[in-house]
Amino acid sequence: MDVYRLLYPMRTYIVVAGRGDETNVMAADWVTVLSHEPTLIGVAISPKRFTWELVKRYREFVVSVPSVEMLDDVWVAGTKHGPGKLRETSFELVPSGSIETPSIGNALANLECRVVDERDYGDHTFFVGEVIGFSYSKKAFPSGKPHLGAGFLAHLSWMDFVTFSNKIYRPGKGR
Amino acid sequence: MDVYRLLYPMRTYIVVAGRGDETNVMAADWVTVLSHEPTLIGVAISPKRFTWELVKRYREFVVSVPSVEMLDDVWVAGTKHGPGKLRETSFELVPSGSIETPSIGNALANLECRVVDERDYGDHTFFVGEVIGFSYSKKAFPSGKPHLGAGFLAHLSWMDFVTFSNKIYRPGKGR
Repeated sequence: MDVYRLLYPMRTYIVVAGRGDETNVMAADWVTVLSHEPTLIGVAISPKRFTWELVKRYREFVVSVPSVEMLDDVWVAGTKHGPGKLRETSFELVPSGSIETPSIGNALANLECRVVDERDYGDHTFFVGEVIGFSYSKKAFPSGKPHLGAGFLAHLSWMDFVTFSNKIYRPGKGR
Repeated sequence: MDVYRLLYPMRTYIVVAGRGDETNVMAADWVTVLSHEPTLIGVAISPKRFTWELVKRYREFVVSVPSVEMLDDVWVAGTKHGPGKLRETSFELVPSGSIETPSIGNALANLECRVVDERDYGDHTFFVGEVIGFSYSKKAFPSGKPHLGAGFLAHLSWMDFVTFSNKIYRPGKGR
């Protein structure tokens, strides 16, 4: 079995890299937060991806948060190669506030990152970005907290995706 | 707002470190996969945590996968300090197959890691571990894939936790 699958389901995000006609999008599950102050996040990208070349070249990327309604677009981003695939999606590229790499206007949120470190780990490169700008949907994050009705997307396995149920669990209830 | 919250909800895991009476557990959201071959995973741990000292000392850790039913124990692991908290939980420590750090026998899965790299990023240290052993519940991962009925735990915000709904989404259905 693929041992890493024991950590699944994992959230699925979109990584945007490049600029102009070269702008590319990629689906990525291997994303995490690394530091609160400053806010640093990391994403593991395979050198086989064109996005890898673009992040290397421009030293910046955007992590966008798709909803389950955008699954078809996420799938195109995850399975096709090169910037041409953007025309097959309904991702709306818009200028970012702090970097040249565009954000996805119809995503739930965008984290604009400048690369501050990179390390090769096995078959992927881990790019660490400082979040120097961001945008988000007030509906998806009212008062800065995720609203489950937004339909946050997670990857179960291969073609199977899921979202969260609306029930909220709090510690202490069972004691 | 806390910008990193835009990536939430994120899965919540338990990090086990140390051995014998020193064994400690910590709740961790900031966990990701880094490489498929070899299987490498990373976890960001604050130097304020006793777990941080233990991982530094023994160069190994276990990432355990709790279910939503274990939320009270996860909360203890995430909010209390030092190995004494283990007595307040129902975590069943059992020997790991490949490292000295114990696994959690009643968790859904355990990934046994040897530290192969560490980097300080902002207010956390990112420990990279090679997964050299593992165990899992066949109920939670039948044929190696996550079964949603297992109640995989995710963190929404502060005291609020969630799990996944049972509906599976596949790309292409909407087209």
